[in-house]
Amino acid sequence: MTSLGDKGEGHRETTTKVLNQGSWTQVSCPCCVSEQVEPLVLIQLSDNIQPVTKRWLISLIEVSERDGGAALLAHPGEDECGDVIVVSAPRCTLLRATEDLGLCKKYHNGDMVAFSYNDRDNFSNVDDMQEFLTLAERQYIVKYELDFLRAQKEQKIPGVPESQGVLKARENICQKLEKVGVIKDIFPLHDKQRLTDLCRNWYSGKQIWGQPLDSIQAYFGGTMGFYFSFLDFYTWALVPPAILGLVLTFLLPGGGSGGGVVKEQAGVMEGVVEVDDSPSVSGHMVQAVFSMLWSTLVMEFWKRRSSSLSHHWGLLHLAERFAEPRPGFHGTLGINPVTGRLEPLFPEWQRQLRVGLVSVPLVGFFLGMVVLGMTGFYHGEALAQGFHQESGSLFSGALLYLPSVAHIIYTNMLGNVYRTVAMQLTEWENHREESSFQNHHTTKVLLFTFFNYFAVLFHIAFYKQDLPLLRKRLASLLIVTQLVNQCTEVVVPFIVDRFFSAPQKKQQEDDPNVDKLRAQRSLPTFPGLFAEYIELLVQFGYLSLFSCVYPLTAVLLLLNNVTEIRADAYKICKLFRKPFSAPVSNIGVWQTAFEVLGFLSVMSNCWLLLLSPRVREFCLEGGISGRNIILFAILVEHVLILVKMILAFMIPDEPDWVRIKREQIEFHSMQALGQSGKLH
Amino acid sequence: MTSLGDKGEGHRETTTKVLNQGSWTQVSCPCCVSEQVEPLVLIQLSDNIQPVTKRWLISLIEVSERDGGAALLAHPGEDECGDVIVVSAPRCTLLRATEDLGLCKKYHNGDMVAFSYNDRDNFSNVDDMQEFLTLAERQYIVKYELDFLRAQKEQKIPGVPESQGVLKARENICQKLEKVGVIKDIFPLHDKQRLTDLCRNWYSGKQIWGQPLDSIQAYFGGTMGFYFSFLDFYTWALVPPAILGLVLTFLLPGGGSGGGVVKEQAGVMEGVVEVDDSPSVSGHMVQAVFSMLWSTLVMEFWKRRSSSLSHHWGLLHLAERFAEPRPGFHGTLGINPVTGRLEPLFPEWQRQLRVGLVSVPLVGFFLGMVVLGMTGFYHGEALAQGFHQESGSLFSGALLYLPSVAHIIYTNMLGNVYRTVAMQLTEWENHREESSFQNHHTTKVLLFTFFNYFAVLFHIAFYKQDLPLLRKRLASLLIVTQLVNQCTEVVVPFIVDRFFSAPQKKQQEDDPNVDKLRAQRSLPTFPGLFAEYIELLVQFGYLSLFSCVYPLTAVLLLLNNVTEIRADAYKICKLFRKPFSAPVSNIGVWQTAFEVLGFLSVMSNCWLLLLSPRVREFCLEGGISGRNIILFAILVEHVLILVKMILAFMIPDEPDWVRIKREQIEFHSMQALGQSGKLH
Repeated sequence: MTSLGDKGEGHRETTTKVLNQGSWTQVSCPCCVSEQVEPLVLIQLSDNIQPVTKRWLISLIEVSERDGGAALLAHPGEDECGDVIVVSAPRCTLLRATEDLGLCKKYHNGDMVAFSYNDRDNFSNVDDMQEFLTLAERQYIVKYELDFLRAQKEQKIPGVPESQGVLKARENICQKLEKVGVIKDIFPLHDKQRLTDLCRNWYSGKQIWGQPLDSIQAYFGGTMGFYFSFLDFYTWALVPPAILGLVLTFLLPGGGSGGGVVKEQAGVMEGVVEVDDSPSVSGHMVQAVFSMLWSTLVMEFWKRRSSSLSHHWGLLHLAERFAEPRPGFHGTLGINPVTGRLEPLFPEWQRQLRVGLVSVPLVGFFLGMVVLGMTGFYHGEALAQGFHQESGSLFSGALLYLPSVAHIIYTNMLGNVYRTVAMQLTEWENHREESSFQNHHTTKVLLFTFFNYFAVLFHIAFYKQDLPLLRKRLASLLIVTQLVNQCTEVVVPFIVDRFFSAPQKKQQEDDPNVDKLRAQRSLPTFPGLFAEYIELLVQFGYLSLFSCVYPLTAVLLLLNNVTEIRADAYKICKLFRKPFSAPVSNIGVWQTAFEVLGFLSVMSNCWLLLLSPRVREFCLEGGISGRNIILFAILVEHVLILVKMILAFMIPDEPDWVRIKREQIEFHSMQALGQSGKLH
Repeated sequence: MTSLGDKGEGHRETTTKVLNQGSWTQVSCPCCVSEQVEPLVLIQLSDNIQPVTKRWLISLIEVSERDGGAALLAHPGEDECGDVIVVSAPRCTLLRATEDLGLCKKYHNGDMVAFSYNDRDNFSNVDDMQEFLTLAERQYIVKYELDFLRAQKEQKIPGVPESQGVLKARENICQKLEKVGVIKDIFPLHDKQRLTDLCRNWYSGKQIWGQPLDSIQAYFGGTMGFYFSFLDFYTWALVPPAILGLVLTFLLPGGGSGGGVVKEQAGVMEGVVEVDDSPSVSGHMVQAVFSMLWSTLVMEFWKRRSSSLSHHWGLLHLAERFAEPRPGFHGTLGINPVTGRLEPLFPEWQRQLRVGLVSVPLVGFFLGMVVLGMTGFYHGEALAQGFHQESGSLFSGALLYLPSVAHIIYTNMLGNVYRTVAMQLTEWENHREESSFQNHHTTKVLLFTFFNYFAVLFHIAFYKQDLPLLRKRLASLLIVTQLVNQCTEVVVPFIVDRFFSAPQKKQQEDDPNVDKLRAQRSLPTFPGLFAEYIELLVQFGYLSLFSCVYPLTAVLLLLNNVTEIRADAYKICKLFRKPFSAPVSNIGVWQTAFEVLGFLSVMSNCWLLLLSPRVREFCLEGGISGRNIILFAILVEHVLILVKMILAFMIPDEPDWVRIKREQIEFHSMQALGQSGKLH
């Protein structure tokens, strides 16, 4: 027990009024009465909050769900007028929400079974909430309950001017309060003791070869757990291509077919071929084919790993579809045909129409704008260079920088506009489930970001067809972006944290409880995992799309990722507020993104092989015509894609034992349905 | 009630002893006692069956399942010594098997709900088996029960020589009896009255625009129902390409770019271009792009139709995975981890290993043999022609036929060997479920047959690159094969049936019951739907793979299919024994085959467009180099595949109302599972 209110054995009354046991609202349910209450979530109110508003909010939080409350426990923080409310959850609320969310928990026979409130006594550890649910789950449940606070009838918010403080019937209360500025933020609280333990096992201790994934999942929740598991898995998966890259570069340099002819053949290509340090034809081929198959195998085995993890963490039967819709969802009030509950309804076909007829074209338009920007940049550069060569003045020399500057400004503005558009489009698509919302939003941003990163490289590879330039760009990107990322992500925040924030911390140390809350309130909000995933995706892109150009890619990425794991861990533990993290059963749309990249890589690699001067030379030596080389490359591409698809089909997406567990549950629920005739 | 024992109102004892009511074995269960028993299935015994064996078998059939029997009703047929046993099923057995199979039936509230024996009173029509289950379902259940007769302990089969007549414990009795020759065949009986009704509604009446799909499904069962639904759907789907083909051929002939240049350009290609009656470039393009998108749309909308049908027919929740394994399945006896029942077990990974390491290479080997045969044929033909030109003798003239003859013999032998190998391989793969067995077997035969049909066309299109020859071949194939098919399938059997079999029938008409059984026993066994489906697939292949070569394909196919429906209907109703037909929820692997063909069609059409002389001429006029044309074609191909994939992804596989029904059931079963803690 690491409850914040826990002051040792004797339950003696604490002198300080901060979060003392007595100030928690009372629970009505006898089974939930406990002597220590664990603070889970902090509601940060506005500085000029009226006490009447705060009292009203606290009463809403503690009232039972039947009466339109959240059935949680609230604590007014330092004093009745302070700008925070600390929230916790009683046992009954936690258990009921566990069933609603469809979390699986250990049954008395050791299986993971979807939790059922009626059957609760057959589950292990059901009496000790700290054992039964992970910290992240308890905190998510609090957020879940708060998110679904809805006004029972039209009413005024006490202490807020009438002009904005009127709740309509069934309006979402927390959203409204955030809109009118009463609530500034809601975030889960760190548990110092657990966090210290986690850090020791994770990055500051002797742990080098693995990560405490279970503890990460328990402390930070599903999305984080899956991110770090994927990072871990992916880093290990980099070892084979790294070894291959080292072997090709240092053990088999040059290749046997002689470099002399290369320069003569170079005239065929538009670019200028420099001294060729690329690997031999066979090395080239091996690298390309290997990277294509490797990407499929990695993603297939990750799927298996992912489903094992998700079973292990009890996330295999999430009931998001049958739970309440996400807070932002709106529609005409009606009876949900599936669950029979009263909730807003929005027809699926209308959503699909919005996605298909508005979102897809708009995203396409923005991608077109990226391409347009790039074309404009190249065009402008050529113009400026021509002008400079003609006039040669200082002014024209300065003008040389104009296209780059204009392009950077353009890209930035476009990016900002796009981010807003993407979020609003996704909101407008009106997804019922949070995961669906996230997937659609991520897909939109992802496509754009990916285009931004790779447009230049694709331009060099496919339009300019200049392999040496591609090789140089790739090497510099890999080294520069990694250095820059590591710096901005870790070194700078670390320095700020250690040397600038530390003195302030010391100062507050005299009052540990106040300090804990204050310290966490002062941290910035965690920006989400998008940046982390996109970094991995871009890496994976460099590796699989252009790997045969620069064989050492995997080695550099492997080195980067080993430090990346620690850096991310440090960052999330120390430098940000703890984020809420929903229970999820996989990495969502990122899985698809990586798989799509795998297929793109086949096309890209075949094309690069076709361009490679050594392959051309090799073919010309063998007397094969240019047309036939292309046709052969197409054939190879199609065969490789077929092989990838067959591989993906042949490798089962879940290990046998997970499949058996899943089928067991399906069988039991079929039987249960048959035996209970009353449900219909 | 069309029960065979039904002799009108008064239940008077019939004078003939044939299938009189009294000879049926008695039911022990009070709810199953009924005054008429409907004969469902006929077991055809060997001619020299011993009465003791027959009595033993009858007793096995009637004994309850607890005592190792099938809990069915048996009737000794004409007399105690005859070579048939007629089998029927009592109500309890039917209902229990309905639950085992996972059939959905109408609940009292009108929903289709998976039937549960405990909850039987809430289902509609549960007292009248003829209404509650379709004839096909009742007959399949009898087969299902017979298939799972297993020896309780090691025992001798009475009346069979000891050398072969010993059953091991848990050995499958029906399989053993078929092996030792006691049982010659087991087949379901026609119901004359229903059959006549069905025929009238189906093909002999005024019904032109539709088929009575529900009645077909009820009478012939799931697989038949789906086949005719698909045929119907597909025939309607041919209307748009047929119209397009007519428009392109008759309204927009030739195209504007002038045919004069064509012949000059023809030298580029290896073949000899004749007078060019192909459509214009734009018509060509339109046709190709249309057929590519059309194939995707057809298959996506068929999926939706299929899931509606499967919901409508109560086949959406088949519980094959949780039922007994198929009779041919073997393995070490153990507890099924999912259902907890004692049954043979065989690890999934071992099956996949067998498929991946043995079946796939072997199938590949046979496909290679087909290609080898074709190469040999072309090679031999060239040799023979060369020899004939040199010598010009009668002998060398006769030798010209040798390659064709040798190729035909080779292909036939290869086909026969392959069929045996495919069946044995699939048996050896040891699939637990019948549907999985069928899918794997069909896939194997399908690949081979498809290769056999299309190898020559692909050779002409891709290797010889001779479009006019391809066009001729396609036209002749379409017309000849359709004529031949219609003849062999319908006209010949019709003539035989009408003029040769009819007199015999007349002769027996005096004893209607004996006649009914005898007549059905004299019919040949139904050869299965493979040939019907492959015909559709090959049609679809002609249409989508090479459509832009011969725009009238769709018109010919449409004409063919309109008669095909009637012909197939006539055939299955009149010319064969009624087949058993398992409840299935879709057309299985054929769906995949059609979809794969859709993707192949993109590649093939892009290639054909590239080859088309008009496109080449068009490009040369525009001053585009050959290399760039190819690259452009590749780009177009990739984009079209992408569009197809996006289309397939965007169109939901089931209509909204089916999805809602399915989710309702999932939700209810989740709730039911939660409420029944005792199952675990």
